[in-house]
This record gives sequence, structure tokens and C-alpha cells, in this order.
Amino acid sequence: MKVAKFGGSSVANAEQLTKVGNIIRSDQDRKFIVVSAPGKRFSDDIKMTDMLIALGTAYHNGEAYEENLSSVKNRFSEIIEELKLDLSVLDEIEHSIKSALSVEGPLESRMDAIKAIGEDSSAKILSAYLTDQGLPAFYINPQEAGIIVSNEPGNAQILPESFDKIYSLHEKEGILVIPGFFGYSKEGNLVTFSRGGSDITGSIIAAGVKAEMYENFTDVDSVYSVNPNIVRNPKEITILTYKEMRELSYAGFSVFHDEALIPAFREKIPVCIKNTNNPEAPGTLVVAEKEASEKCVVGIASDTGFCSLYVSKFLMNREIGFGRKLLNIFEDEGISFEHAPSGIDDMSVIFRDKRFTAEKENSVVNRIKEELRVDTVSIHRDLAVIMVVGEGLVNTIGVAEKATSAFAKAGVNIEMINQGSSEVSMMFGINASEIDKAIQSLYTSFFE
Amino acid sequence: MKVAKFGGSSVANAEQLTKVGNIIRSDQDRKFIVVSAPGKRFSDDIKMTDMLIALGTAYHNGEAYEENLSSVKNRFSEIIEELKLDLSVLDEIEHSIKSALSVEGPLESRMDAIKAIGEDSSAKILSAYLTDQGLPAFYINPQEAGIIVSNEPGNAQILPESFDKIYSLHEKEGILVIPGFFGYSKEGNLVTFSRGGSDITGSIIAAGVKAEMYENFTDVDSVYSVNPNIVRNPKEITILTYKEMRELSYAGFSVFHDEALIPAFREKIPVCIKNTNNPEAPGTLVVAEKEASEKCVVGIASDTGFCSLYVSKFLMNREIGFGRKLLNIFEDEGISFEHAPSGIDDMSVIFRDKRFTAEKENSVVNRIKEELRVDTVSIHRDLAVIMVVGEGLVNTIGVAEKATSAFAKAGVNIEMINQGSSEVSMMFGINASEIDKAIQSLYTSFFE
Repeated sequence: MKVAKFGGSSVANAEQLTKVGNIIRSDQDRKFIVVSAPGKRFSDDIKMTDMLIALGTAYHNGEAYEENLSSVKNRFSEIIEELKLDLSVLDEIEHSIKSALSVEGPLESRMDAIKAIGEDSSAKILSAYLTDQGLPAFYINPQEAGIIVSNEPGNAQILPESFDKIYSLHEKEGILVIPGFFGYSKEGNLVTFSRGGSDITGSIIAAGVKAEMYENFTDVDSVYSVNPNIVRNPKEITILTYKEMRELSYAGFSVFHDEALIPAFREKIPVCIKNTNNPEAPGTLVVAEKEASEKCVVGIASDTGFCSLYVSKFLMNREIGFGRKLLNIFEDEGISFEHAPSGIDDMSVIFRDKRFTAEKENSVVNRIKEELRVDTVSIHRDLAVIMVVGEGLVNTIGVAEKATSAFAKAGVNIEMINQGSSEVSMMFGINASEIDKAIQSLYTSFFE
Repeated sequence: MKVAKFGGSSVANAEQLTKVGNIIRSDQDRKFIVVSAPGKRFSDDIKMTDMLIALGTAYHNGEAYEENLSSVKNRFSEIIEELKLDLSVLDEIEHSIKSALSVEGPLESRMDAIKAIGEDSSAKILSAYLTDQGLPAFYINPQEAGIIVSNEPGNAQILPESFDKIYSLHEKEGILVIPGFFGYSKEGNLVTFSRGGSDITGSIIAAGVKAEMYENFTDVDSVYSVNPNIVRNPKEITILTYKEMRELSYAGFSVFHDEALIPAFREKIPVCIKNTNNPEAPGTLVVAEKEASEKCVVGIASDTGFCSLYVSKFLMNREIGFGRKLLNIFEDEGISFEHAPSGIDDMSVIFRDKRFTAEKENSVVNRIKEELRVDTVSIHRDLAVIMVVGEGLVNTIGVAEKATSAFAKAGVNIEMINQGSSEVSMMFGINASEIDKAIQSLYTSFFE
């Protein structure tokens, strides 16, 4: 049995839903279907979830919300009409919108109920469509499916007891269509996951039913070995491990939320990333372990927005506790660091600069000067991180040479190298302005 | 004015002391002379300091010590006779040995007094010899010189108030010969520095008198760019910065105690390493700053005896405080770590394995498992660290390529690279068994 999850672009309109229907029909193993809210149909389109947030916000603020409400309804009714479904589906959706708007209690709980309408309606529409097409499909509410979560609006965490309940979905006949993105607290409140949470639902269902595979349908044929905005027509990755996926996701690969996959990863369920618009393409398979292959590098990821803080202090390495004290200041200031390479009398801390305001910088630098009595402390913003990723990379002679020559060929100075702490990646730090030529040169070296 | 310090081999016998006399005579700026205890005259010889430790131990244990005592006296009398000095010098030395043996108080204090006889006697002999040669030389006791230290036997620390007192040595006429290795506490007790402490004395005197140069006379022409036991006839280093010296000293360069130089470094006094047996050779100059030269790598150092501990935990980088907690365990267990490179879900800690017993390993590993709930933790012993050192290395394109190709050419797998945390070095970790071929290949790439 497989769990198939369809993302926003796969359920954006009637045409896409028809494709989804065909995909489900073509493989009898696709018993558990998880859907997102309708996504964009064209680049300037508004995602259903954003429409619902606008509706909820206007309603909460006592502003006119009728226009928001009718755009939501229109979007659904358009899909329903095009699919020539019974209008009772629309009635049901309208009813659930009304219920969501009238949820009592804190704002966040009502907002969660409103946001969840996108996925919930997608599931209702798809199950009606599949039934209409003669398939034995049933809408299953997450509560009925057994998705019991913590009561943290917008950031629900699955509770361990859910999985046994979910496993019993096997007993149900037919194709089960489950809305993604939300579950229910023990008290019965609807609570949403963090954004992108349909991936989380899919992964939870896959883990719960112990699926043979978790298929994640999106709008690309596969995961690419490098960002296609930097390198034209890059090679596709056919298979990669969870670890490789994690390292690639970390630095800019955003095919999906890698953390969403944790429940599936824990059960060692293979994940397949496929394209709704080209279901014949093999996609990219993400597995717990793979055979050692000759090519040890599977992908090159990159991300900007990093910052490094450098401190030097004579005889630092004789001072037991220095590193710990430095990291303690970061922890105190609520900054999660990414790496902290150290030399003899020097140490750097690399972190994302998103929340590192000038004020925060001031406070961190002052504390370091006062509490650690360092000789120098300096900050370097606009740092880019490049990850060269592949299982077995650490045990292959010459990979570091290949990578470093690629930088030299591109005339890019390497500010930082960190190899060996991870068994599946090498990390490089360079100036953000040189990212494109560095990546292009690395791609040529490793893939051409 | 210069401070010249002569190491153990330079004062090992009459022949060496004659060379020292010529060196002092040849440059009128050599006003402040610091001496070690007589060192080895041939490879199986016993250093004076070790003879004195044996004497002190036997005396303390109530064992027969007469033989030890006479070997000490014989060694000095031999030097004095060969230099044809007045025997009153020997009387003075014998008198000071007697006083040292009768020191009251804790064992450590008496031991310090006995150990100090080596340097103290060297200074007395040298000043007598210089006087005999018609030079205006005077023995200056460290107390008279103003070397006031903390009362920690065997590990004295200089007290800040010393420096003003030392500066007033300028008022004294002639050449001042000061024994290295010890000072006096405020209470007037003789206290020794850590072993190799004559370098400390020389550096303190240089800082105190604000010398134009601190000359460190030893038995090599210069600092070599690489360990001569691994590469035959390696290039000599003519000039290097304090920082470069520190990085080279860290991994195996042991021309002298780099920490001993701190007082001189703080005052930015240039240090020159010279050879008593070949004083015409320019030696190696160690300076605070040097001109940027084309060759950015000055030396390659290496050391074995490192150990790495690797931990992995899914989603580690989301866990604020993980790194700090891990380093905290090391601190708790009294292990000073050298480097702690981290990946996304992985972190390594590199440290010296000297005191990392099997028992300690067990305790550290168990704490990490229990307190940090990691997925895996493993230990890798027999790691060697190689430092490629040079100012400006970080800003030079292609250095990393040159270094990594050298490893690849030698067929050596790189376990670890850490670049960028220090501005003057790149660190590599490899298996200790492959150190020679790696170093030879690196040397060929950078120096031939």
C-alpha cells in the first residue's frame, strides 16, 4: 500500500484534479491520499491558504469580509462546476466555512479552523470526483483518521498514540482521501501544523499505516543535483538517502520540508518525489540506505543569508570552557548557531543572519568582549554556504581536491571549509556575491 | 639593547661557554644575558636539571644521596677547571647546594630550590668567565632583577608589578647575567617556572627592559618549514609572525615553548632564534607583523596523538544549546578540546588523547548518550593533525586546492578539513599512519 500526497499545484483546478484522478486510478496500491489546499494556477494567483488567512483576519478585525468570503467560495465552486460534481459538495464546504468563522475561544484556534478549510475542501472535492469517476473513495476527517496532536495552534506536534489509531485505517474499504495540514487535540480542537504541513500529514499517515512507499506529488519531475536557477538543465537525482536529502534541504533545496519527513524516515519508508504533470517520469527516490555507487557526490546545494562571527584570543586553546562560554552567549541571546569551527587561538561561529539585527549584534559583541576578554571580535555578513553532498564522500580520496580546484578555477576565494564533521557533506563558505560562478564551476567538475 | 638567552646545549661545557663568550663580546647591545642549566653534551648525557631532581628526590626519601651530590659538583667543577676560573666560583655553588638542601617548609619548595641550582650556577660561571675575559659582567639574582612570581612551586606565574622593577636594570652598568627558570615570591621564596622556563625568564626580561630584540640561542640554525625528520634538508624560515609561530608550535614544532614568549609578544619585541654553534647564520626572526610576501605558506606542522569524537542526532541544528551541552560534558570531564566542527545533524570534537583513558572514554560516551540522546556516538583514535600555516593564506585563491591535491597525490584520505576559523592556517586531519607521505607531498607542493 502506498500513501500519495498531492501538493497545492496538483489540486489547483479541475484540470489538475483530473490528472490526480488518473494517477490514483493507475495504481491500485494508492489507497491513502493526502491533499493540500488549492495552490497557484498561474504565477500571480493567490493560494487558497492566503485567501483564507485574509478572510480570517478581516473577520477578526471586524472589517468587511464579504468579498474575501465570496472569493473563497467562488474558487471552490469553479472547481466543482468544472468537474461537474453534485453541488452538495459546495454546500458542505460553505457549511464548514460558517462553522470555522463561529469557532469560540482564542483567535489562534479560530484562525486554525479557517486555514484548515483549504485542505479539508480539497479532500471533499477529490473524494466526490473519484466517486463520480466510479472509484470507491471516501473523505476521512483527520480526527477520524486518528491524527491526535498537541494543542499548539499553527505548530501542532503529532502525539505518539496517533500511530496505532492510524494503522487501523487499513480496516477501511476503498480509497481514503484525507486533508493535510491539521489534526485534532485530545480535547477535540482543530489544530494546524506549521506551514507546508500537508507534507507532515502525508508522512504521518505513511508511518502510521506502515506504507510500502510515500509518494509526494508536486510539479517537478525530480530533485535536481543543483539549483536550476543557477545551472541550466541540471542532472536529475534518481536516488538519494535521507541524510543526503537533509544536507541538501539545509542549504536551499526546497522541494519539500525535510522535517516533515521525520515520521516516514523513522519507519524507514521510501519517499518518492513525483510530478503530477508527468507521472511517467521515475521521480526521485529518497531512501534510508542505498548501494554504494561510484559517483559519491549526488548534489550541490547553496544558500545565502549567513553570517560569521570571528573571535581570537591568545592561548584560547588552553582555556578550558572557552568554546562553551562563547556558545552559551549565543544560546542566551536566542541565536541558533550552525557551525562553530575553531583554531588554536581563534574560533568562528556561523549562523543565519535573518534575526541578527544591528542591536543584537551590538549586544553579542559587547558580551563577548566583556565576558570572554578576547583580543579581537569581528562580524562578516553576506556569507553564502555551499554544501557538496554525497554518501561516502568522506572516504573518497580526491573529492576535496576536485571541489577546491573548482573554486580556484572560478577565481573564488574560499573563506571557510568544514569537512569531516558530517559524513555525507563538505561545507564551504564564500562571499554571497560569488555564489553563481562557484556553483557553476562545481557543477562542471562533479557532473559534466 | 638586546636580551640574549642561551639554552642548555649552549652552556653544557667549557667549549660551548667559550662560544657564548664570543657571541656576547661580538655585539655590545647584548647587555642582558639569561642562561639555562647545562644540557646534554652527547646524546646519552644527563641534563643538569635531571641530576638535581635525582639528588633532591634521594635526599627527601632519606636515601644515600652522596653520589648524586658529587656528580653535580663534578659536572660544575669540570666546567670551571676547563675555563680556568677561580675556584671560588665552585665554593659559591657548593654553598648554594647546601642551602637548597636545607630549605625548610614543604617538599615542593625545597625541590624548587634544588632544581634552580642548575641555572643559578650557569649564570655564576658565565659571569665569572666573562669577567675573566675582560668583560664587565655581573651575576644578577632573579630577586635582585625583580622577577616576582606567584607562590606556585614548579608553575610560577610572573606578577605584573615585576616589569617596572625589571626596567630599572637599565641603570646597572655592564653585562648582566641572570639565571633563567626561577623567580621569587613576595614572601621571598624561590619558585620555579614550568619546565623549559629559561625561555620564560628571557621573555620576561626582554619585556621588562623593553629590549629591541630577544635573541634565543639554541643549537639549530633556524626554524625549518617542516619537520626535518620527515623531509630531508627542508627550507629554513627566515621570518615568521607570532601567530604563525603559535600555529606551528601547536602541531609539533618544538624549537621552544611558544607560551614562554607571551611577555615578549605583548610588548611586540622581535624574537630571533639563533645557533650558538653557528652565530653567523641569520637565524629565524619572529615578529608581530611582517610585509605581505608572495609565498603565503611559511611552514607545515604535524602532530599525532589526537582523537575525535563524532556524534549525530537527527535535527541537531534545530536544538538550541546542543553544541554547548556537548562541550560542557568535555569541560566537566576536564578535557580541553581543540576543535569542534559541526554539520547539520553531526558534530565532532577533536582533542588530544593523552589523558583520554578507556575509563574516561566510557564515562564521556555514556553521558553523551544519556544526556544528549544522540543517534550515534563514535570515537576515532590515532588521528594526526596537519597545519598548513601562513599569514594571508585565507585570502589567497587556490591554496586549498594546492593542499588537497597534495593529499590526493599521496593517496591519503582527508578525514577532516578546518579552514577559515584561523586566519593563518588550514587544518587537516588524517590517519596517523599516513603522516609521513602526506607531509612529504605537501612539502613538495608548497616548497619545491
